[in-house]
Amino acid sequence: MQKEHLKKLLENVSEGSLSVKEATDRLQYSAYEDIGYAHIDHHRSLRKGFPEVIFGEGKTADQIAGIMDKMQNQENIVLVTRIDRRKAQNLCSRFPRAVYHRDARMLVLELAPVHVSGKGLVLVISAGTSDIPVAREAYLTAKMMGNEVETVFDVGVAGIHRLFSHKALIERANVLVVVAGMEGALPSVVAGIVDRPVIAVPTSVGYGVSLGGLTALFSMLNSCSSNVAVVNIDNGFGAGYIASMINHL
Amino acid sequence: MQKEHLKKLLENVSEGSLSVKEATDRLQYSAYEDIGYAHIDHHRSLRKGFPEVIFGEGKTADQIAGIMDKMQNQENIVLVTRIDRRKAQNLCSRFPRAVYHRDARMLVLELAPVHVSGKGLVLVISAGTSDIPVAREAYLTAKMMGNEVETVFDVGVAGIHRLFSHKALIERANVLVVVAGMEGALPSVVAGIVDRPVIAVPTSVGYGVSLGGLTALFSMLNSCSSNVAVVNIDNGFGAGYIASMINHL
Amino acid sequence: MQKEHLKKLLENVSEGSLSVKEATDRLQYSAYEDIGYAHIDHHRSLRKGFPEVIFGEGKTADQIAGIMDKMQNQENIVLVTRIDRRKAQNLCSRFPRAVYHRDARMLVLELAPVHVSGKGLVLVISAGTSDIPVAREAYLTAKMMGNEVETVFDVGVAGIHRLFSHKALIERANVLVVVAGMEGALPSVVAGIVDRPVIAVPTSVGYGVSLGGLTALFSMLNSCSSNVAVVNIDNGFGAGYIASMINHL
Amino acid sequence: MQKEHLKKLLENVSEGSLSVKEATDRLQYSAYEDIGYAHIDHHRSLRKGFPEVIFGEGKTADQIAGIMDKMQNQENIVLVTRIDRRKAQNLCSRFPRAVYHRDARMLVLELAPVHVSGKGLVLVISAGTSDIPVAREAYLTAKMMGNEVETVFDVGVAGIHRLFSHKALIERANVLVVVAGMEGALPSVVAGIVDRPVIAVPTSVGYGVSLGGLTALFSMLNSCSSNVAVVNIDNGFGAGYIASMINHL
Amino acid sequence: MQKEHLKKLLENVSEGSLSVKEATDRLQYSAYEDIGYAHIDHHRSLRKGFPEVIFGEGKTADQIAGIMDKMQNQENIVLVTRIDRRKAQNLCSRFPRAVYHRDARMLVLELAPVHVSGKGLVLVISAGTSDIPVAREAYLTAKMMGNEVETVFDVGVAGIHRLFSHKALIERANVLVVVAGMEGALPSVVAGIVDRPVIAVPTSVGYGVSLGGLTALFSMLNSCSSNVAVVNIDNGFGAGYIASMINHL
Amino acid sequence: MQKEHLKKLLENVSEGSLSVKEATDRLQYSAYEDIGYAHIDHHRSLRKGFPEVIFGEGKTADQIAGIMDKMQNQENIVLVTRIDRRKAQNLCSRFPRAVYHRDARMLVLELAPVHVSGKGLVLVISAGTSDIPVAREAYLTAKMMGNEVETVFDVGVAGIHRLFSHKALIERANVLVVVAGMEGALPSVVAGIVDRPVIAVPTSVGYGVSLGGLTALFSMLNSCSSNVAVVNIDNGFGAGYIASMINHL
Amino acid sequence: MQKEHLKKLLENVSEGSLSVKEATDRLQYSAYEDIGYAHIDHHRSLRKGFPEVIFGEGKTADQIAGIMDKMQNQENIVLVTRIDRRKAQNLCSRFPRAVYHRDARMLVLELAPVHVSGKGLVLVISAGTSDIPVAREAYLTAKMMGNEVETVFDVGVAGIHRLFSHKALIERANVLVVVAGMEGALPSVVAGIVDRPVIAVPTSVGYGVSLGGLTALFSMLNSCSSNVAVVNIDNGFGAGYIASMINHL
Amino acid sequence: MQKEHLKKLLENVSEGSLSVKEATDRLQYSAYEDIGYAHIDHHRSLRKGFPEVIFGEGKTADQIAGIMDKMQNQENIVLVTRIDRRKAQNLCSRFPRAVYHRDARMLVLELAPVHVSGKGLVLVISAGTSDIPVAREAYLTAKMMGNEVETVFDVGVAGIHRLFSHKALIERANVLVVVAGMEGALPSVVAGIVDRPVIAVPTSVGYGVSLGGLTALFSMLNSCSSNVAVVNIDNGFGAGYIASMINHL
Repeated sequence: MQKEHLKKLLENVSEGSLSVKEATDRLQYSAYEDIGYAHIDHHRSLRKGFPEVIFGEGKTADQIAGIMDKMQNQENIVLVTRIDRRKAQNLCSRFPRAVYHRDARMLVLELAPVHVSGKGLVLVISAGTSDIPVAREAYLTAKMMGNEVETVFDVGVAGIHRLFSHKALIERANVLVVVAGMEGALPSVVAGIVDRPVIAVPTSVGYGVSLGGLTALFSMLNSCSSNVAVVNIDNGFGAGYIASMINHL
Repeated sequence: MQKEHLKKLLENVSEGSLSVKEATDRLQYSAYEDIGYAHIDHHRSLRKGFPEVIFGEGKTADQIAGIMDKMQNQENIVLVTRIDRRKAQNLCSRFPRAVYHRDARMLVLELAPVHVSGKGLVLVISAGTSDIPVAREAYLTAKMMGNEVETVFDVGVAGIHRLFSHKALIERANVLVVVAGMEGALPSVVAGIVDRPVIAVPTSVGYGVSLGGLTALFSMLNSCSSNVAVVNIDNGFGAGYIASMINHL
Repeated sequence: MQKEHLKKLLENVSEGSLSVKEATDRLQYSAYEDIGYAHIDHHRSLRKGFPEVIFGEGKTADQIAGIMDKMQNQENIVLVTRIDRRKAQNLCSRFPRAVYHRDARMLVLELAPVHVSGKGLVLVISAGTSDIPVAREAYLTAKMMGNEVETVFDVGVAGIHRLFSHKALIERANVLVVVAGMEGALPSVVAGIVDRPVIAVPTSVGYGVSLGGLTALFSMLNSCSSNVAVVNIDNGFGAGYIASMINHL
Repeated sequence: MQKEHLKKLLENVSEGSLSVKEATDRLQYSAYEDIGYAHIDHHRSLRKGFPEVIFGEGKTADQIAGIMDKMQNQENIVLVTRIDRRKAQNLCSRFPRAVYHRDARMLVLELAPVHVSGKGLVLVISAGTSDIPVAREAYLTAKMMGNEVETVFDVGVAGIHRLFSHKALIERANVLVVVAGMEGALPSVVAGIVDRPVIAVPTSVGYGVSLGGLTALFSMLNSCSSNVAVVNIDNGFGAGYIASMINHL
Repeated sequence: MQKEHLKKLLENVSEGSLSVKEATDRLQYSAYEDIGYAHIDHHRSLRKGFPEVIFGEGKTADQIAGIMDKMQNQENIVLVTRIDRRKAQNLCSRFPRAVYHRDARMLVLELAPVHVSGKGLVLVISAGTSDIPVAREAYLTAKMMGNEVETVFDVGVAGIHRLFSHKALIERANVLVVVAGMEGALPSVVAGIVDRPVIAVPTSVGYGVSLGGLTALFSMLNSCSSNVAVVNIDNGFGAGYIASMINHL
Repeated sequence: MQKEHLKKLLENVSEGSLSVKEATDRLQYSAYEDIGYAHIDHHRSLRKGFPEVIFGEGKTADQIAGIMDKMQNQENIVLVTRIDRRKAQNLCSRFPRAVYHRDARMLVLELAPVHVSGKGLVLVISAGTSDIPVAREAYLTAKMMGNEVETVFDVGVAGIHRLFSHKALIERANVLVVVAGMEGALPSVVAGIVDRPVIAVPTSVGYGVSLGGLTALFSMLNSCSSNVAVVNIDNGFGAGYIASMINHL
Repeated sequence: MQKEHLKKLLENVSEGSLSVKEATDRLQYSAYEDIGYAHIDHHRSLRKGFPEVIFGEGKTADQIAGIMDKMQNQENIVLVTRIDRRKAQNLCSRFPRAVYHRDARMLVLELAPVHVSGKGLVLVISAGTSDIPVAREAYLTAKMMGNEVETVFDVGVAGIHRLFSHKALIERANVLVVVAGMEGALPSVVAGIVDRPVIAVPTSVGYGVSLGGLTALFSMLNSCSSNVAVVNIDNGFGAGYIASMINHL
Repeated sequence: MQKEHLKKLLENVSEGSLSVKEATDRLQYSAYEDIGYAHIDHHRSLRKGFPEVIFGEGKTADQIAGIMDKMQNQENIVLVTRIDRRKAQNLCSRFPRAVYHRDARMLVLELAPVHVSGKGLVLVISAGTSDIPVAREAYLTAKMMGNEVETVFDVGVAGIHRLFSHKALIERANVLVVVAGMEGALPSVVAGIVDRPVIAVPTSVGYGVSLGGLTALFSMLNSCSSNVAVVNIDNGFGAGYIASMINHL
């Protein structure tokens, strides 16, 4: 968005010749910055309630830095997902306020403190210890988007009583994110005992016919509980994102 | 649940020796009726806010009638999904108040009138004319669960301006159900322009590498928009169900 | 096996020139009858403890009748699996003592009464009403092989409390056959609460990404409970067979 | 499980106000220790006859050590499966009594000597030399669970006479574990000559359309011998586990 | 090929201005008849030793009749494969000398008697009774191409001794065609005991993870015996064809 | 598009207050008619040079008739693809000028005669007789879009000389559509001998590992000739459409 | 092609005993050079309008150098695709005029300057930053084949307004190459707004059910826009090649 | 085989109490050496005409050395396939007469010179330069088994005239091995012009939907030429082996 254009538009608003609603509409869909290898969508926070999140995989550290640099002038928070330790270290040295969460493979540049704005509790449950990285990505995303978030880890269906012992917490949740690999049965069981939406996240944990997470994914899509919707394999970020959006309705 | 047991429990409540909360807890998880070929979960409305829904496929008309017969004494509404015309006619002759919705392949036995209890609008959008049956199943489910529901059909991405002309309705929606077959691109585009949760439903419409809906499904799971969660292929019921649950939070 | 050969061999045994053990060995691996379209394995009951079972699919009624005709002279029981009603009626008119079990798609010719010879209880559990045909095939097979068998139907994980209410029966079982379609989660949950072998049977019940039973199959193979072994999709017969074999050890 | 609770329960037992059976029931389903990244299921040996086994893949050495540390106070044996050499060396330096079996990728911490408690012989057969690691995992698991175990390696169907030369051993087995990659034909052939349960283990050995073990797996599930049940690809542990469970009935 | 062209060419040969070898070369690659919906390859018998074979599936009876009509003037034999009974009856009424083999789904128009020209025995072995149609197609193809052919049916690996009892015949064969569905193990076992080429034919017989014959196919391609080559699922014709070609070298 | 709006816009054009270019732009993206089950895109001919084509599969005859009815007032031609004989007869009785092409499964309502407007020859080649329906669909589509079109059928690679005999026609083509099932090799060979774009169409003709056309599709996508682009399985319509578009550049 | 042969042929042309057209025809299909590991197709530029392009993957640097060495005597340009940095450096030291484009993984040896010969603009659009390498390969290929080429990057459907802001450029294009990974929706949307051929290139960018690009591929093949044809996953080269060929018609 | 047993058997032969034929029979099926990790099949040369071949993948250098050590006392030649350079160097230092062929990944220990015993020419053709390693494996295997072998490389269908220029050699071949990756079209074309058996070998060369060779494999199995049989992906060894066996009939 060119400065002159924005200035004129705002002058019109201040003069009353353009209503606030109309100005919002125009800005919402037109503003982005083209830096060659990326079109940065500066008005996404306006349009979607949260700024663009940078998908780190397949981008160089330089490309990510270039995008972060433009965003930090306009946003309160910048998130980078799926970023490995080497690239993260490079970026932390350039952006001293950035914090790298290795278990969740996320980089967080929190420029203004995040406040809880979501209505209830987002609860993140994982089936096994190996599913924790994905669960942590969901946790951190929902946290950074302004939600109260709790976690319960390693309560898979092979010892279903471990799950039941957390019943009080489960019943307090407004939205649940359930993360599981291997046979992916946990979301069905959890959804059977609550009347809240369950976002299921299959993980690529397993071997043989876990098929890189496809079995858990298909299992979740076939859930005989109806209050389950599913995101892509290992997509902790997406689960945290949509859980937050539901929690903010 | 045996009558004596229930009677005693309620006596205890009336006498004050059992708190209401405790009684609810006990009833919630213990009551079902075993009729040989089915365990009818009478207390699901208590536990999940809506009675058990009968999945019609793979059950005989006699089995369905048996379950409906038990349920109609205890519930305000009975839904049967994925039921073909022949079975439905058989059941309509046994349950005169039942109504068969052929396009949605659903049978509805509305014993008490459904009132709108959901907080906002549920909007069901479909990409093509051939996707309408699945969209209608989502529509009817959400409607019967007490939501205001609207529909927009045949606005696929090959003529994206058709979608944009419904912008006002789209922006009014609290939750969106987006139904698409073939390349399944519509949910990504819709989700890109709203800040509300989008429940995507892939359909088996298409041929060749539509692979019976797998392509649309995978496309939706890979959406570059983050506010998308997905249900099984052709699962209009599940989408309507979870949309309603979100709309009631 | 030619009569003369058998006669001579038995004479040798009666004369003491051939030990019983040696005679058993010889007979066990050599006897079958070649009727052109089939090699009937008459000594399988000797070798495997139960006569050959006729797989009905892909065989004509005439072929099945031909095999049954040869077997009924030598065996106490003849089983035909995966046989449709039309073929079964044809065969029942030829073999008046044969009984057709339509739900299990099995034909049973019980020439001598079956006695219970297995050591404990075989328990057959199914997740949904639509899984009953496969569960009945397992039930009938185990029953006909001389086991005490019980069934519990429609106790899927969406209402896990229904399963737990059968805890006494579950704990009494020596071997368990657990039948489930859709997400196939039930065997994992059952196996998590018993210390007995669980034979899991995926069914083709479901739609979309149930993939004709593949999802349930893979889910079961990925079970996080270790006391689960799996048979082919819809293979109720195989599950009943191996459960019986384990129950006879 | 909190100490006070346990103490009180045991006092009740000693006083006779709680029967032994009832106390066992209560303990069986309620005890686990939550150490953040894992819920350690301390009473699994009570409930399932063998302590929890640690799946090493996807866990850090520190996580494994943390779990082992808690378990060694309560169990006679701790097994870690699918653990590579580097992690194993790390753990052996922390747990001096631990022994690493590199071929089976297992770590064994045998705190009290294991005695043979199984009823018969468990026989582990492998088709090729490359299948040995998986076969060794099955062997070690069954051994550590208290079984007499024997092995026969490299007797694939391309030279079927090699298998037949071990006929005596095969006939002595109570349960058989048959391990094969590539075309996975061996379990069918073995099962055809015994009247005992055969647990088939597909391996990922092969190339091209071995499809990482899927072909062997599907081949085994399609076995025309009925006394075959199957576990996941490369799951030697699971095969040894269920074989032991069957052998202890 | 236009008549004038052929006439001139043959005149040249008779005059000696064109050598026989050169004339053969020219004819071999240029002659076909274009009848709109088909290019009939009249010189295939010259080039390949056997006339074009008509693949019946997906062609109308009229199209097949049109092609047969043109071929019968030039060939000694016309084969139609994969033709159902209805189309075959139609054609038999038009071509009275045509014979329909229903089990093999083949129509044979034998215009001149076929003589044995192959060098040795072609042996066709099938694993199960349900595999016989495919085996019969291979049998008939090899027979019609001038080979001595024998068959052995229903000798699958679940009772491997049935196979071994045909050892004499197996050792006499020059080329073997081995037909099997389900787990497809038979070709590996057969190939392990002969030093002759084995053409393996997977069939679509089976259910569940037989995957329409893919499992048998992959199993055969992974054979640990090296003297196995494979043709498409249910392609009895192709197996008989290449077996004949090998037998004529 | 509402009439008043259109009227005003056209008045502005006639008055000169709106340029023709601007008016075209506005109309191009905004006009469609919403008839409930469909949004008819009346201005597609303006925008894309050819009116919307009705995909017949999954639509009822009534729905198709409703769309045709609206379109015939505004377009010179209406095409319906993938329409079976029964529906087509129904529609022909309602639209007497409509012609049904059974081989191509297309219904054509030619309201004004089509003239050749494409620049060169579009050549449609098919590998086998069974591929003709798809080839005919491509032929008819390109023809109706105003192209000179020729066809060569049944010139598959098993007798490659048949193809070479049509060399003159092949070299005259401006764009080629090559249709093949089974192994799908023909487009690679054709593309290797021309310097023109080749649109490859895989068909579902074949059996076994033709996998419903997937093998031909993948084969074509892997073509070692670079001038090949591919459309969906059996999508003769799409091939004819894009070939026409290229031929009109 | 042997020198003597070529010499004689050219003498005939110069003497007029052979027409230019006939000489071109002969040369076009017969000339290649056999260097053992490769048959270099020297006359491809004659036949196809552009010299053979070297596929770098799976060839050693020595093999590539050998082919380049032969080609540089006869061609104006030599392209090597899919070549990694290490091999490229090796080759650059041997061929000093060669330029390595790392982002596109291409090596270009431009022996004579390339002039624009294509008729219109080729526009290359990519959905995400991670798709740029494939888009660059398409760009460079089309550029080197003599086309005016422009690029627009990172305009995926999650923020569809970014695409629309490039409308002028899009409408100016004669042929479009659209590159996208993940859900692969962009080509459908672009094709819906232009009346020009769109060559869609799926990329392997994504994770989980992006399935290495299969989802994007299938999505594109199922496009509800008809002016889309597709090339192999990550095949930027092929897309640029056929786009150029279309642009030169 | 124990020495005493062999000695006695041979004494019987020399005494005439055992016929030569009978002795051969007994030896053929009984002799192998069990060295723990392998059963070496010493009499395979007797039974199959060629000694066991060692599959190097998944075996340690020590295991291979152990097997070679036993074999070199009894055989004229020892082959190791799929062995990488590091293991091969280790073995060459232990077996100085062993020769490593890096391109074919084979180790050959030729203890007695190989003489040509096959009847005709085995011709190995490859489609691309990258397919050469697999073609070389076929070449070396057939060579070492006593055949005259020739090769033609890089004659793929994109420039089909390169293939035709080798027509004389192709027509002289008795058996053909045709190696191709990517679209796998070459075997169909070659088989269309010869009346000899063609053994097709798909390779894993390619990217995207080459699917690691599956596309080439399926393409070959679907060949519209009938004289094609197929081996596993990259199985040059198997192709050479069966080609040799056919060439020795």
